[in-house]
Amino acid sequence: MKDIRTMDITRIKGEKITEEEDMVIVEYPFTIFINDEELITLLCSPSSLKYLAVGFIFSEGLINSYADITGIKLDEEEGIAHIYIDDINKLSEEFRGKRTITSGCGKGTIFYNVVDSFKSKRIRNPMAVEIERIKGLIREFSRRSDLFLNTGGAHSCALCHDDEIIIFKEDIGRHNALDKVFGEALVDGLDTRDKIVLSSGRISSEMLIKVAKRQVPMVVSRAAPTSLAIEIAEELGITLIGFARGERMNIYTNFTIHE
Amino acid sequence: MKDIRTMDITRIKGEKITEEEDMVIVEYPFTIFINDEELITLLCSPSSLKYLAVGFIFSEGLINSYADITGIKLDEEEGIAHIYIDDINKLSEEFRGKRTITSGCGKGTIFYNVVDSFKSKRIRNPMAVEIERIKGLIREFSRRSDLFLNTGGAHSCALCHDDEIIIFKEDIGRHNALDKVFGEALVDGLDTRDKIVLSSGRISSEMLIKVAKRQVPMVVSRAAPTSLAIEIAEELGITLIGFARGERMNIYTNFTIHE
Repeated sequence: MKDIRTMDITRIKGEKITEEEDMVIVEYPFTIFINDEELITLLCSPSSLKYLAVGFIFSEGLINSYADITGIKLDEEEGIAHIYIDDINKLSEEFRGKRTITSGCGKGTIFYNVVDSFKSKRIRNPMAVEIERIKGLIREFSRRSDLFLNTGGAHSCALCHDDEIIIFKEDIGRHNALDKVFGEALVDGLDTRDKIVLSSGRISSEMLIKVAKRQVPMVVSRAAPTSLAIEIAEELGITLIGFARGERMNIYTNFTIHE
Repeated sequence: MKDIRTMDITRIKGEKITEEEDMVIVEYPFTIFINDEELITLLCSPSSLKYLAVGFIFSEGLINSYADITGIKLDEEEGIAHIYIDDINKLSEEFRGKRTITSGCGKGTIFYNVVDSFKSKRIRNPMAVEIERIKGLIREFSRRSDLFLNTGGAHSCALCHDDEIIIFKEDIGRHNALDKVFGEALVDGLDTRDKIVLSSGRISSEMLIKVAKRQVPMVVSRAAPTSLAIEIAEELGITLIGFARGERMNIYTNFTIHE
């Protein structure tokens, strides 16, 4: 299914009013069922849907690996994925009961909960920052963000190894784009512990938590990080870089330079 | 509480590496309790919290007006709001049971559900587009988006009457910024049926649904709308304008010009 479509619009440019066709980004409701029970409806771009479903349920703690899934049925026309899991993670019950963006009660709790639950995944030796390599990756990343260039409405996300982008995904949502990247990495059995994540979007605590779950040592964004994301990255040994554009970038946490 | 704070960063600019202080946008976990029961934790900017809480529970259908609320206790230090409602809307039970971004099952369902449930709120006479007025509002809107200018990480949202911005809010999230605007409108008892909403962020179906609930006849965004938002706006008589920047804008739906 296509991520963009054409629609009729009225374009105003100074005094000029014209009727034109323009490209618009598709928003697609995608409902995930686990063992025939409805879990969630994501609003997303209709590409890489299998990866989105797998990445999302991993991020939410319902599976620990792709091997936990015994079957996937995807109906793109209807916007439905059925996923079958034998030994459903105990977290899923908690998940179904709660209706919070992130669980926790009050300021500070999220920070301590996250840092505590990720203790075992803390990165002991932060990845060295190779500035020229990162500039090169961001150049390539920006070049490939076609969907964004055409419609101004999408986010991109990538997984990199050495100086190469090995997975690249786009979506109307930052979180969906990241889940698609991690979904493909899970399906392909890629180790993410020596990779770099690139994002076109803001790095919030939720984005950082997804990255921490996959033990990725470095996140680079073209946009801003939030205070909470910086605090969590600092504690977990993750190197967080923001505003990476052209010759510039800001390094927020765990900066060790490559000599 | 402040929406931005300073943090130590390492800045790379070409070959130059410097240690600096920089402004970072605060991400603040804010937990809402209804009648002492935990409802949700929003991740937001810590300003206009009362308006955010009121706007959010209205958007989610838990109240029909500000008068439905019998008490509000706000603890900014702890990041908690307690809201008391006597006659809790029956929708709230549905709300607590579900864990979906938007309910519905499969592609198309959301569109028909929304159009159907908003039939009574359909706008019969779309608001005429006064191009020069909108250009002026967007100029003023951009000028006031200070938080965004300082940190690159926030969204702005405004409610306008005639050629004036009467409510202006910022938040790390587009949805929160809109809920803050509508929260203040609810608390102040403002009629929103003759107003215009401005947003710095993308207009997705969720944003459009919030606007439709308040029967606002026109939404203007500096960014892109999604296909689903355009389809819903078309059906509900809402005029949807995107990419409103400087002398340009795209009009997607219900275009009638003011002579």
